[in-house]
Parts: sequence; structure tokens; C-alpha cells
Amino acid sequence: MSQKAAIGVDIGGTSVKLGVVNSQGRVLEYRSFLTDKRKSRKKQLDTLAAHIQELIRLAKNKKLKVLGVGIGAPGPIDVERGFVYFFPNIPGWKNTPLKAILERRLKLPVAVDNDANAMALGEFLFGAGRGAKNIIALTLGTGVGGGIVMGGRLFHGSHYSAAEIGHLVINENGPRCGCGSRGCIETYVGNGYFIKEVERRLRTGQKSVLRAWLKKKEKLTPLLVSQAAQNGDRFSQEIWRETGEHLGTALAGLVDVLNPEKIILGGGIAQNGKLLFNPVIKTLRKKAFPIASRSVKVVPAALGVDAGLVGAAALVLVNRTK
Amino acid sequence: MSQKAAIGVDIGGTSVKLGVVNSQGRVLEYRSFLTDKRKSRKKQLDTLAAHIQELIRLAKNKKLKVLGVGIGAPGPIDVERGFVYFFPNIPGWKNTPLKAILERRLKLPVAVDNDANAMALGEFLFGAGRGAKNIIALTLGTGVGGGIVMGGRLFHGSHYSAAEIGHLVINENGPRCGCGSRGCIETYVGNGYFIKEVERRLRTGQKSVLRAWLKKKEKLTPLLVSQAAQNGDRFSQEIWRETGEHLGTALAGLVDVLNPEKIILGGGIAQNGKLLFNPVIKTLRKKAFPIASRSVKVVPAALGVDAGLVGAAALVLVNRTK
Repeated sequence: MSQKAAIGVDIGGTSVKLGVVNSQGRVLEYRSFLTDKRKSRKKQLDTLAAHIQELIRLAKNKKLKVLGVGIGAPGPIDVERGFVYFFPNIPGWKNTPLKAILERRLKLPVAVDNDANAMALGEFLFGAGRGAKNIIALTLGTGVGGGIVMGGRLFHGSHYSAAEIGHLVINENGPRCGCGSRGCIETYVGNGYFIKEVERRLRTGQKSVLRAWLKKKEKLTPLLVSQAAQNGDRFSQEIWRETGEHLGTALAGLVDVLNPEKIILGGGIAQNGKLLFNPVIKTLRKKAFPIASRSVKVVPAALGVDAGLVGAAALVLVNRTK
Repeated sequence: MSQKAAIGVDIGGTSVKLGVVNSQGRVLEYRSFLTDKRKSRKKQLDTLAAHIQELIRLAKNKKLKVLGVGIGAPGPIDVERGFVYFFPNIPGWKNTPLKAILERRLKLPVAVDNDANAMALGEFLFGAGRGAKNIIALTLGTGVGGGIVMGGRLFHGSHYSAAEIGHLVINENGPRCGCGSRGCIETYVGNGYFIKEVERRLRTGQKSVLRAWLKKKEKLTPLLVSQAAQNGDRFSQEIWRETGEHLGTALAGLVDVLNPEKIILGGGIAQNGKLLFNPVIKTLRKKAFPIASRSVKVVPAALGVDAGLVGAAALVLVNRTK
């Protein structure tokens, strides 16, 4: 019997990544192209379909059985119909029946979901969530995306709008968030907010090695703050401790409500290891209910840069290889 | 065919209520007795079993087919084994295999769950949640209990510890909570905290009709503050508005994470109608994501004083009458 595979497609505001992913979650072929926002949706769809068709051909040459195409998309989706409501960062995609369009052209089953949900499913099937039944995955990037797997299935809620974990409020008097609320966890651990807070503190005149580094034209990034902390910079260590405490407070709420086995943290800010994870776990244990907080594991994501497209492929593989 | 029914038992720190409940959720027979905390667990179990047996006899006299006994218990439960970890307000029940003990004595299936979960299931099957698939139910009493029904089933999490919604943090710098955290929603809408906050504000010398009423020996309760607000007392109206905003913030987080169809509010503080519901709904719409917040309905609980035992009976009826 030929080995099974799916095409995974990770649509992003900057680039589209796609690949042939086998039923063990390995990427066998990989492509990417820039998201050309000036082109019409039709032209963008033509480019996308052509790349997918090329990968399908490559997969067939390798004697793989392609089960379908999974797409992780950067916006709200009606998952059942594979319908794109809109993409906040790519104009022109409002109300696109993406699944219907691609199934007609590709003659293969197509599954579409929000990119954060796809990543959660990828980690669940092939990454840090293997072996668990109930997980929560968070991606700490510019925004904070989330996905929830319960009883082995993605949890979508009543209108496919569940798992917007980045907007859990941890301080109703906190910083204003783009979503219209205040003190959402995204306003503490989202990249942009994080950097703004570091800049604000630097302006207060506190001592930090960052000041010297920035004069040498280093760019202020979470990674730079993390290097400073590892070099013993108190200022940077304190920022990471507080960031971890904020995130830990949000996770404590999630643990009290959902009692998951694992929480998986991915994205740039999650790559700071103990600097972030230690205060997160300490705060979580202190604030969440004992039965739930003692048993939950907080772990880094395992799929790395492939997470998006492996997760997208998982949307097809989860239903068709078990 | 004879009509089906279950015995519902609502164990509380003050009294135990039990009844015969038919498959439409109607209470056909009702009993209650005081929780005698000075007695041994064995004696308490004897009393409980005797009352249940009496109801089973009564039900059989009415030609009802008794499917089993459902128990709503005031503490954490291993639902699969029907095992009581402990009851915070009734000593002596630590590690009690309640399901096993009662099934041996009653020769009937016994289901045990946390009382807040049972109430959520009761509202889902027979009350304000009828017709929905995904609901969240909150009981606003001394504490704030919660239950989550997803896809028609109670959601328990990995260790039966899910739905501790009262301890979702809405202000990490807020009042200290009994659970060890700060600014949990319970510290704003739990009865005791609510009354303490009213007292604190009265001490600041603000004008309020409550001051005169309290001099006439009225007891300060949420109901009294609600009557004052209905009488046009600005002080009391402001308190209800703020309480509603706090609760709305917590519900916005839940809506972003779980995207439910309905949120059902029960318990004393929820009986204040528009005073509470208006600011709750306004805040929720403002703070939660549009797709999820426009579609969710926030409604009062419908089962009233019977909620506990109807919910307990529902634990049996949900699996056996559909």
C-alpha cells in the first residue's frame, strides 16, 4: 500500500508556505512564495492552485497517496464550509468560498481552518502534544493566537470563533488592545506591545546593557532582551519575569476553565526557555486550582518553522489516517 | 410503557434536597433534611440512603421506572468513579467512593458530579439552555460556580477539574481571593465580596438611601442594594453597573475562548434582572470578538430553587432517555 500524505498550505500576510507532508508529519517537499497583496484575489488563487498542483505531481511521482489539501488561513473561517470571512492583513479575500473553489480546481478534498487552530492540531498530532487528549496551544507572535484540542478534536465553538485566547483579559484596567478591550494577554506578550514596554522602561532611565547595544545599531527585539537577560542584565531579567507572570495569570484562568493536560507555547517569545517558562509555571501553580495546575504540563512547541504547514496538513491527516 | 424518572440529590453544606424527577425535568416528589455535620460520614450516608430508598418506593408506587440516582456534590469529584475528593464545607467526606457505596446499597446506577456541573446540565436539558449545543452556566452565590456543556455533554477536562469559572482573573492587581490568586471574578460578584465592597463604599461617606435602611435594622444583602437601585439610589445603581462590568469582562474572555451559544446566569445576584444583565451584556459586546459576542445570548437561569436536584437527576437522565 502506498504511503499517505497531504498538502499543507500556510497562508501568511508576508508569504505562503506549502509542502507535502506524510502521515508521520514529516515535510517531504517544500515551497514558498511571496504574498502579492497588489494582485487580485483571482490571480492570487491562480498562483496558489498552480503551486499546489505542482506539489501534488511531485507527491504522486514519489508514489504517495495524496489524501487532500489542508489550509491554515490568517483570519476567521467557517470551517464546515471552508469559507473565509476575511483576512485582516490581506485585502480582497472577504467572503471567499476557498474550499469550494479549490476542490473544484484540484479534484481533492480541501480543509480550511484558522492558522492557530491548524498549528494546535499539528502539535497535537505530531509535536509537543503527542499522547495527550486535551491540549491548549498558544502562538506568541505579533498577535497571540490559540487553538484548543479536546478529546482529540479541535474545539471550534458555536460559530468557529473559539480559542481567541490572546484576548483573555488579565487586567481590566490594563493597556488598550487593538480588539477594543483592555489588558488582554496579547497586550503583555504580543511582540509589538512587549517591545513598546521595553522602550518605555528604557526612557525612564533605568540602567541596562540594552542601551549600549542599541547605540551599536542593534535592533530591539525580544531576542535581544533575552540575550541581555542571559548576560545578567537585571533590567531585562525583570521584564521577562513580569512577562512570564502575566502569561501565567492568563494560563491559570485557562487551566481553571479547561483543565488541559498540556499547554504548548510556540512563536518567537516562547523561544526564551527558562526566562519565560519559569515565571509562567510558578504563577500558574500559584494561581490555578491544585488538581488542575499540578497535573498540567507547560511545554515549548516542537514543530518549529514547519508548524504552520504541518498543522495545515494535519487538518486533512487527522480524519483520514486513523 | 411506564414513564421514566431519576432520583436527584443536591448535597449542600446546610441541607440535602432530593426528589423524584421525571424525564421532562419535573419534580414529582420532594424531600429535604439538614446536613448534620456532627454525625459521622457513615451515619450521614445511612440517612441519605434511607431518604433515597423512600423516594424510590414512592416513585415505584406511581408506576415510574427509576433509571438511577444522580448526585450533585459540593466539592471536587472524580466523575468516572463517582469518587468524592473532599467537601470544603462538610468535614469527614475526604476520599469517599460515593458511587460505589450507594450502588451497592441501592442496586441502581448512581452518577456523581460537582453541583455546579449538575446545575449546568439541568439548565441545558430542561431550563434556559434547551435547544442549544454549547452553553456555559454560572451560579453566582457565596462562591461562583460554573459548568460547561459542549456538543451536548458536560465538559470535565482532563482531571474533572474544568469549569472553575469563578477563578478566572480579570484584574491581576485586584482583591485577594480565597483561592490564592487576585482579582478572580468571584472577588467581584461573590456574595460576601460584594457586600464587603458595599460596606467599604458606605464608610467613605457617599450618599445613599442604604444608610437609612440599615439604621432601621435592615440586613445588607444584594437584594437590598438592588431595591435601593430600583428606588433611584445612585450609589446602588453605580455598584450594580460596576459589578455587571466586572462580570461582563470575565464573560468576554469565556466567549473568546469557548464561543458558546448561551451563557446562563443563576444564583442570588443573578436575580437582579436588568440592573445586572444590562451592563454585563454591554461590556461583553464591547470586549469580546464580534462573531462570538454578537451571537451569544446571556439569559437568566430558569430552574429556580429546583435547579440543584433537577440538575442532579439530569446526570442520570441525559444518558438514559435519549
